[in-house]
Amino acid sequence: MHAYRSHSCADLTKTDVGADVRLAGWVHRIRDHGGVLFIDLRDHYGVTQLICDPDSPVFAQVEKLRSEYCIRIDGAVKARDAGLINAKIPTGEIEVFIRDMEILGSAAELPLQVFGDQEYPEETRLRYRYLDLRREAMQRNMVLRSDVVAAMRRRMWDKGFREFQTPIITASSPEGARDFLVPSRLHPGKFYALPQAPQQFKQLIMVSGFDKYFQIAPCFRDEDPRADRSPTDFYQLDLEMSFVEQQDVFDTIAPVIAGVFQEFGGDKTVDAPEAWPQISYADSALWYGTDKPDLRNPIKMQDVSEHFRGSGFAIFAKLLEQDGTEIRAIPAPKGGSRKFCDRMNAFAQKEGLPGMGYIFWRERGKPLPSKEGIDTLEDISAAALAVKDNFEEFLRVINERLVPFGSVIGYSEEKSQEIAKKIMIAFSEGDTERARLIRNAYFGELEAAGPLAKNIGPERTEAIRQQLGLGVGDAAFFLGGKPAAFERVAGKARTVIGDELGLTDQNRFAFAWIVDFPMYEADETTGKVDFSHNPFSMPQGGIDALSGDPLKVLGYQYDLACNGYELVSGAIRNHKLDIMIKAFELAGYGEEEVRKRFGGMVNAFQYGAPPHGGCAAGIDRIVMLLAGTSNIREVIMFPMNQRAEDLMMNAPSDPTSDQLMELGLRIIPQD
Amino acid sequence: MHAYRSHSCADLTKTDVGADVRLAGWVHRIRDHGGVLFIDLRDHYGVTQLICDPDSPVFAQVEKLRSEYCIRIDGAVKARDAGLINAKIPTGEIEVFIRDMEILGSAAELPLQVFGDQEYPEETRLRYRYLDLRREAMQRNMVLRSDVVAAMRRRMWDKGFREFQTPIITASSPEGARDFLVPSRLHPGKFYALPQAPQQFKQLIMVSGFDKYFQIAPCFRDEDPRADRSPTDFYQLDLEMSFVEQQDVFDTIAPVIAGVFQEFGGDKTVDAPEAWPQISYADSALWYGTDKPDLRNPIKMQDVSEHFRGSGFAIFAKLLEQDGTEIRAIPAPKGGSRKFCDRMNAFAQKEGLPGMGYIFWRERGKPLPSKEGIDTLEDISAAALAVKDNFEEFLRVINERLVPFGSVIGYSEEKSQEIAKKIMIAFSEGDTERARLIRNAYFGELEAAGPLAKNIGPERTEAIRQQLGLGVGDAAFFLGGKPAAFERVAGKARTVIGDELGLTDQNRFAFAWIVDFPMYEADETTGKVDFSHNPFSMPQGGIDALSGDPLKVLGYQYDLACNGYELVSGAIRNHKLDIMIKAFELAGYGEEEVRKRFGGMVNAFQYGAPPHGGCAAGIDRIVMLLAGTSNIREVIMFPMNQRAEDLMMNAPSDPTSDQLMELGLRIIPQD
Repeated sequence: MHAYRSHSCADLTKTDVGADVRLAGWVHRIRDHGGVLFIDLRDHYGVTQLICDPDSPVFAQVEKLRSEYCIRIDGAVKARDAGLINAKIPTGEIEVFIRDMEILGSAAELPLQVFGDQEYPEETRLRYRYLDLRREAMQRNMVLRSDVVAAMRRRMWDKGFREFQTPIITASSPEGARDFLVPSRLHPGKFYALPQAPQQFKQLIMVSGFDKYFQIAPCFRDEDPRADRSPTDFYQLDLEMSFVEQQDVFDTIAPVIAGVFQEFGGDKTVDAPEAWPQISYADSALWYGTDKPDLRNPIKMQDVSEHFRGSGFAIFAKLLEQDGTEIRAIPAPKGGSRKFCDRMNAFAQKEGLPGMGYIFWRERGKPLPSKEGIDTLEDISAAALAVKDNFEEFLRVINERLVPFGSVIGYSEEKSQEIAKKIMIAFSEGDTERARLIRNAYFGELEAAGPLAKNIGPERTEAIRQQLGLGVGDAAFFLGGKPAAFERVAGKARTVIGDELGLTDQNRFAFAWIVDFPMYEADETTGKVDFSHNPFSMPQGGIDALSGDPLKVLGYQYDLACNGYELVSGAIRNHKLDIMIKAFELAGYGEEEVRKRFGGMVNAFQYGAPPHGGCAAGIDRIVMLLAGTSNIREVIMFPMNQRAEDLMMNAPSDPTSDQLMELGLRIIPQD
Repeated sequence: MHAYRSHSCADLTKTDVGADVRLAGWVHRIRDHGGVLFIDLRDHYGVTQLICDPDSPVFAQVEKLRSEYCIRIDGAVKARDAGLINAKIPTGEIEVFIRDMEILGSAAELPLQVFGDQEYPEETRLRYRYLDLRREAMQRNMVLRSDVVAAMRRRMWDKGFREFQTPIITASSPEGARDFLVPSRLHPGKFYALPQAPQQFKQLIMVSGFDKYFQIAPCFRDEDPRADRSPTDFYQLDLEMSFVEQQDVFDTIAPVIAGVFQEFGGDKTVDAPEAWPQISYADSALWYGTDKPDLRNPIKMQDVSEHFRGSGFAIFAKLLEQDGTEIRAIPAPKGGSRKFCDRMNAFAQKEGLPGMGYIFWRERGKPLPSKEGIDTLEDISAAALAVKDNFEEFLRVINERLVPFGSVIGYSEEKSQEIAKKIMIAFSEGDTERARLIRNAYFGELEAAGPLAKNIGPERTEAIRQQLGLGVGDAAFFLGGKPAAFERVAGKARTVIGDELGLTDQNRFAFAWIVDFPMYEADETTGKVDFSHNPFSMPQGGIDALSGDPLKVLGYQYDLACNGYELVSGAIRNHKLDIMIKAFELAGYGEEEVRKRFGGMVNAFQYGAPPHGGCAAGIDRIVMLLAGTSNIREVIMFPMNQRAEDLMMNAPSDPTSDQLMELGLRIIPQD
């Protein structure tokens, strides 16, 4: 028999009853039922119930076992009594009577229980990660991560991609974040860098003629930690292809991502790749307040500036007199209660804005006239329209029948006449749309509420309602100013509204390609133009596009968003040296600097560079989404804490003076 | 039609004749046949012949193309004339007439030709790696590497292993080499280290209950460069298993390695894993002079000390009077010529030894007596043995018949009688073995040559020959002293002998497990005992073994050697804290230091550590062997040069003063 086990702890079933077996694993739980010991023995694969009583030659030793002892036992498989069968686990019909037992590894008192689901501070969990990882949820997460990565590889291989490893100790790669540096011993005073991504190398692989590259690539950015970001190393599914356009890259990666989500997404629905919308960066900012929209949330923001220009709401009206300002509305279907609107207003204030104006719609307090009592609004409109070529008759119909209609709703005769006149003018100008809008604004079934509605009056309010497609019980929130100043909060508000109103489909993975990223952006204070994302992307329109306003140049650059996260980012690369030099020139980099900083790539592009493009998918994020967690450390085996420390292994730590000497370095004493 | 290509350059065959196609790739070669241009267009997949003449609207542009331009062409597929068919490539029956052409990337004058197989200095190849990689051999090597790694993954998955990623920016791992350090920005003055191997992490994964782990793991050692070693990062197939013994690890990894060699080894034979011998470290040193023997070479060295003790070869005889010395023989079948022996002697001198004594065997110059003339030696022996109980008669037979025998060979009567006497004595002492040895030494068909044979005389020489199993035309070389001083050269000599004599089967992958490594070694000068290999291996015999002579303790530690390379290295780990503390104590490390240096693992072992073990296989080495190269840079996409520099990307380089400031470092000016 094998030294440690004949079966795993998930193997034994009723068919094994009577067999002599050997098992090894951890003491998950011990129960003492009046001198009979029941032990759940756990390994990676499952749990088997052990039983021991004074008839066993090793009863005395078994009695001394405690949780998380690692043991080996020999014994006979027995059927459980009918009443004790556990249908939830494969081994639930049997138990093993312990005849012999060996302690393979004893356990001191536990700083963290494996059994059960007690919560512990993250520092405790990270310091005792080996215990934390024994817990069911963590075992599941790590297995998920491993299986997701394996599935990605299989899918990439099936598409004819080959995985190539690129250097990890190398030169700085200009991805915009901070590099981790590695001092060189053979060249004291000089440093290598860990790659922020294999960007330049994968492009060089294309220039080297390899056609289709991918890599599950470790990436290194010395960034300040965040919940959804590892402070040191993280992994990307990195790919690059030659002789492709943007759509080719989409057609390649989309089925891989969708396939992985289908395979591991449980019972959540996954949007089919053919249905993933392509949304421009500008539209995404307008509609969702972010370039990584959560499309499970159906809310789409809209520009409603025209309704506020010159309106009675002075704050917005004045704002709009400045260049580059806008008013945007966040429609909130079913959000039409003052309580909810006030809560959202408070949210905006908490986020640093002066507040968020709102309108909500309810049924008009006064009942509308019924067919039996007086003609309905529809009838009046129809009657008026029927005679609109005979202006006298038209006037009579409107006046005679609208004014009494108004009084039913509660307007004075004067007010009613004023509204009727407006409607008449609109009709007479042939603008039946507008006539209908005014008719609805004053006589419709809906009544708009909120201070903002009062300030701008029923017609503008109704125009907004129509633009946003809202109805009774709905609300809309308004933010104004320069979009850059409020967009982020608008996006957040959209999320909160979607969540609180239950609009967001929690049972779905919703994807969208974000395209047409601007190549450049201007610094808000200095006005200096710099690359907004990847400097190596091909500008749309090629070199000609670079002779106009840099801020209007779009790049063949794209992201894939899913449920509010950026999962994939990529670009068609700029493989033409002249366009590259020009593109850098616009961002203020001279040719010499470009050649110095990116010499490897610039040189390579002189020797028959092919058109190429690709993308990189964030593996940690994908697994996070699939595991249903928003903390990246739940899906990494041995993560750093939020101060970029490994408490278990004690990193970082003090170097020895020999090490420093060899590297030619001295530490500057910190104050 | 796609913007760049409708087919790859390997796709088109006779069935496509007449089709309008679009291709993209590189201009591999241009031939001008009297105004008709033939262009080999190359992509990653193959080559297609293009043709262009003045009838083409783009003839003028095509005429200007040069090697390695990246182009896109449109044209019609035509069948080649029967005489121009190239059966060696899939597209050899067709050509494409260029109707339209676009330059996707032009090429400056090439520092390195892609077409053909001209050799270039390695520095040129590394500086222009993107051109070097376009060459056929490098494309093949990189594809091989990628496919080997993929095959390893598939095989590991199939065995129920999951791949888990371990941290890359972490704490020092005590693998015995130098760490690469990474200064921390968030903790100035402190450093992370890049892992020399995921040793501690994979053990912690086992303690975390994961059972079967593997990883294609990047490893980092700041070592001085060598031909078969990358100076920075390299890759291992790293694996670890719980609840296993040594043989379980062999049974797991052997089929993976064998499978990969079978899959990618071409027509070379691969030893079946069941036939891989398990050779102790001590035997391997003795037999092969190395712990990574090349078993394609059948030569097995032997200890021949007894034949030299007190012999006429004073140098060896004196050597053997010192403790710990040995004489070893390298048998060299078919090496029996003075020329070859002298060459090997010179080789040993070049390697720093005083020389290498030798003996070689040839047919005895004088013809042996034939049956017709005088009784043969066999007959005499038989006759003597038949009467050996009658001593008088026995003496008569020997004397009468041996002495004339000797004279035939050319001995004096006196000498012949002396030999006869020796044989008689041996017979009379019942030692027929020895009698036969003396008989052969003086009267056999073989004659030993070389100064060494003269010094020790025919009997010892014959004894050596018999021990080594050599015959006419064979030789043996001898090295003496403390094995540590000559073993390395002995091993090298064995290799040279095997190669030069054509004994080494070049068409085979020969594997051997090397087992029973010593846990400790003593420093030659100080005598201080330290770990000889991995300090985390389980000593054979457990804690009891640690109370005797440390130098006699063997570990459950093993290597897999193939064709003279170490491909795999591993161990059953020491998972018991008390044994670990004791093991370190023997090497001079106090408990406190162990807890400080390996705190993570020591702590973990307090909480129910399972027995576990594993190994790591060197991927670069395996691919090197399969690619048939001995230069590791031939199988790495972007290797460093031998000074650990990346000439293409300019690494390492000077840090900025901002970077140093952030890290709290200052560079010590170098003299």
